[in-house]
Amino acid sequence: MKIAIYPGSFDPFTNGHLDIIQRAIKLFDKVIITIARNSSKNPMFDENERLSLIKASVKGHRNVEVELFDGLLVEYAREKKATAIVRGLRAISDFEYELQMALMNRKLNGQFETVFLMPNEKYTYLNSSIVREIARLGGDVSDFVPPLVNKALRKKLKD
Amino acid sequence: MKIAIYPGSFDPFTNGHLDIIQRAIKLFDKVIITIARNSSKNPMFDENERLSLIKASVKGHRNVEVELFDGLLVEYAREKKATAIVRGLRAISDFEYELQMALMNRKLNGQFETVFLMPNEKYTYLNSSIVREIARLGGDVSDFVPPLVNKALRKKLKD
Amino acid sequence: MKIAIYPGSFDPFTNGHLDIIQRAIKLFDKVIITIARNSSKNPMFDENERLSLIKASVKGHRNVEVELFDGLLVEYAREKKATAIVRGLRAISDFEYELQMALMNRKLNGQFETVFLMPNEKYTYLNSSIVREIARLGGDVSDFVPPLVNKALRKKLKD
Amino acid sequence: MKIAIYPGSFDPFTNGHLDIIQRAIKLFDKVIITIARNSSKNPMFDENERLSLIKASVKGHRNVEVELFDGLLVEYAREKKATAIVRGLRAISDFEYELQMALMNRKLNGQFETVFLMPNEKYTYLNSSIVREIARLGGDVSDFVPPLVNKALRKKLKD
Amino acid sequence: MKIAIYPGSFDPFTNGHLDIIQRAIKLFDKVIITIARNSSKNPMFDENERLSLIKASVKGHRNVEVELFDGLLVEYAREKKATAIVRGLRAISDFEYELQMALMNRKLNGQFETVFLMPNEKYTYLNSSIVREIARLGGDVSDFVPPLVNKALRKKLKD
Amino acid sequence: MKIAIYPGSFDPFTNGHLDIIQRAIKLFDKVIITIARNSSKNPMFDENERLSLIKASVKGHRNVEVELFDGLLVEYAREKKATAIVRGLRAISDFEYELQMALMNRKLNGQFETVFLMPNEKYTYLNSSIVREIARLGGDVSDFVPPLVNKALRKKLKD
Repeated sequence: MKIAIYPGSFDPFTNGHLDIIQRAIKLFDKVIITIARNSSKNPMFDENERLSLIKASVKGHRNVEVELFDGLLVEYAREKKATAIVRGLRAISDFEYELQMALMNRKLNGQFETVFLMPNEKYTYLNSSIVREIARLGGDVSDFVPPLVNKALRKKLKD
Repeated sequence: MKIAIYPGSFDPFTNGHLDIIQRAIKLFDKVIITIARNSSKNPMFDENERLSLIKASVKGHRNVEVELFDGLLVEYAREKKATAIVRGLRAISDFEYELQMALMNRKLNGQFETVFLMPNEKYTYLNSSIVREIARLGGDVSDFVPPLVNKALRKKLKD
Repeated sequence: MKIAIYPGSFDPFTNGHLDIIQRAIKLFDKVIITIARNSSKNPMFDENERLSLIKASVKGHRNVEVELFDGLLVEYAREKKATAIVRGLRAISDFEYELQMALMNRKLNGQFETVFLMPNEKYTYLNSSIVREIARLGGDVSDFVPPLVNKALRKKLKD
Repeated sequence: MKIAIYPGSFDPFTNGHLDIIQRAIKLFDKVIITIARNSSKNPMFDENERLSLIKASVKGHRNVEVELFDGLLVEYAREKKATAIVRGLRAISDFEYELQMALMNRKLNGQFETVFLMPNEKYTYLNSSIVREIARLGGDVSDFVPPLVNKALRKKLKD
Repeated sequence: MKIAIYPGSFDPFTNGHLDIIQRAIKLFDKVIITIARNSSKNPMFDENERLSLIKASVKGHRNVEVELFDGLLVEYAREKKATAIVRGLRAISDFEYELQMALMNRKLNGQFETVFLMPNEKYTYLNSSIVREIARLGGDVSDFVPPLVNKALRKKLKD
Repeated sequence: MKIAIYPGSFDPFTNGHLDIIQRAIKLFDKVIITIARNSSKNPMFDENERLSLIKASVKGHRNVEVELFDGLLVEYAREKKATAIVRGLRAISDFEYELQMALMNRKLNGQFETVFLMPNEKYTYLNSSIVREIARLGGDVSDFVPPLVNKALRKKLKD
């Protein structure tokens, strides 16, 4: 069984992330979305909120699991018997950072490959931080995130 | 009447910004410099200082206005009946960020275009943060900012 | 009256070119599409074919003219009393080349600005050479070019 | 069964290509190396030479096949019931071109994914054209290509 | 005598830094490693720890000195009668930032050149911040830093 | 004695090349400008024309020599007992190609370093091919090349 890990902060989970997952499940037998526990000091959504939002967003997709993790990604991948780490490639700045991380992970554990997938071009310049910024300024992000995440964002920002 | 908005933090306003404005006024009937109110937590100049420094720096230029704004840029542009948002393009890292912002703004409101202009190559690698850093270390930034801004920087750093 | 020139080879004219023109006519009073006469030794369409295909493709657009030109673009722009040269910005490789050309044109004649517009993200990676290649291999390019151009391409390749 | 296609000109086949294949076979059940028939007018090795050199170079690898193809890659992939197209990602210039091709292929046929793998960093700047150039100037390329290819290169250049 | 300055934060000093120094000493008569005093608010190693770690790491290299500095680099270089500032070039993001700094330094003092050297490709994507991150997560960084630095990192993280 | 080689096609020699040479002679005891003999099939100036134009252009500079070469650059560098190869770094596309060449040269002979220098920002986007193109179209390139080269270009194009 070929297992892939799709790691990230997902604060919040966007349609771009969902797009990558839908591509990854065509390639692997199981995709585990792994949420980095402490990726920033002031997340918009805490780790458990992110866990339940992603679980709800991918409910219809067979063979997708969602987990929290901390520590070294390569250790986690080894425990999960993963074949690959999946990453989306959008723009040049991604590319550099992603290659750096992939090379470091390979140095730390050469057993699995980092596999880069390209999201739909609609999502070329979409990322979580711009979604947070627009939402905070009262803009409409319903085109950028799943409906559940949109609802959670609006509730969060009204509080 | 074709109105363009030139948004930024302008902390401080540099000769590179002035260069872009001089190009924009050849293309549009009016250019509104819009200063992002809370662009950083610890600005070197507060919003009112930036407003008066920019007003003084562009005094000689007809058809240029200076305003403070917060909120979504696309809302502001709609109120001002703007045709375009003007941005300077210098280096690759600009390019990526600028395209991302332009695409997001287009998604949020498709009515106006983001127009990219190229500053004089002397200003290719000039930006406000490097000016602040050099000024703080006691370096001479008189080649990089208008005389008024230079004076204000020196006064600010002596205090 | 603000006149812009949109220069290119247009071999063939694509939906990405059309997209840029539709954005440019919101900004300028007139847009002149200028077809570089001898841009390659073996064009798929000769200069007169390109001229009529573009004329037919932009027929519905007011204030758009189409012309052939050779020689220095800056000389042509001066004759046409142009305010700006319009260029589409898509990817990094464009960006470098476009800035080089814009700087050279500015050195040769500082009177007009090069204005960069961003096409719809659907066209981010579209260019004429890839259209020619796919068409030659028998692929369907109807999503990438105006219907008239598609028809002309198929006719050309059957001959 | 998950089948991947690894297309290229392979003129000549390098250690960087071999590296990508060794990564791909960990992810897929079968990898088909597909040699573009007429990728250049004056190849160093003709299509049959490339076919036999690659076949010999990958002999030890189970589940790797080598074929010649021409026409549209997406048609070929459909016939082969491929799940993915595999490409190596090395430098920025690759990245741009590869994304362009991947998007075009996706537009032409959305059924399969382009999967990008990262070669060993030793091969970051290795490509076939630089190998040809060094070999032609009499340089030693034995670190860059499999032994069989090296021998064939030397024989070819002596003739 | 040709003197070069190699400035940086070196928090911590890595094998990539060492690689650049070994290249620089072939070009210059003396290389001064200059540690930026207050490069970040919460360094992993304070300035004196960095000073002694680097001194110990380069002990075998003749004509290498290590110093702390603050203030403007160009002033420091003038005092030291330096001919050049040495910088390593790894990835695109480096490239942009390094060119910006080099141009600014040249504007502030045109007497010396910034000289870019390329580290071994093993170190293409190595930097101090990724070393700190991996070390904090308990990963093994012994391939990325000199033995002394590795020992100091492990001691620091156990405390 | 520290000797550097500055290789190129120099068809034609530009002010950007001259700028790099002036920086290199501050760093090295001797700089040898090495003209690649057969860099293109239809050069504007043949190798002997380029040799005499460059010799004349650098006449005032002590410790600069000009030579023709063909074959492998690393072999040439070894014969000349060179310490370094000097290259100018302007834009991103340079950067990639230059790093590739530098790594290959290092693989072929690890004895010398490739040293990258940054030209004056006026020359950021200047290269020989754009100079040829503008000159052929009748444009004025006197700002981009030494006076002697300008004269030779005009004579060549009148013939």
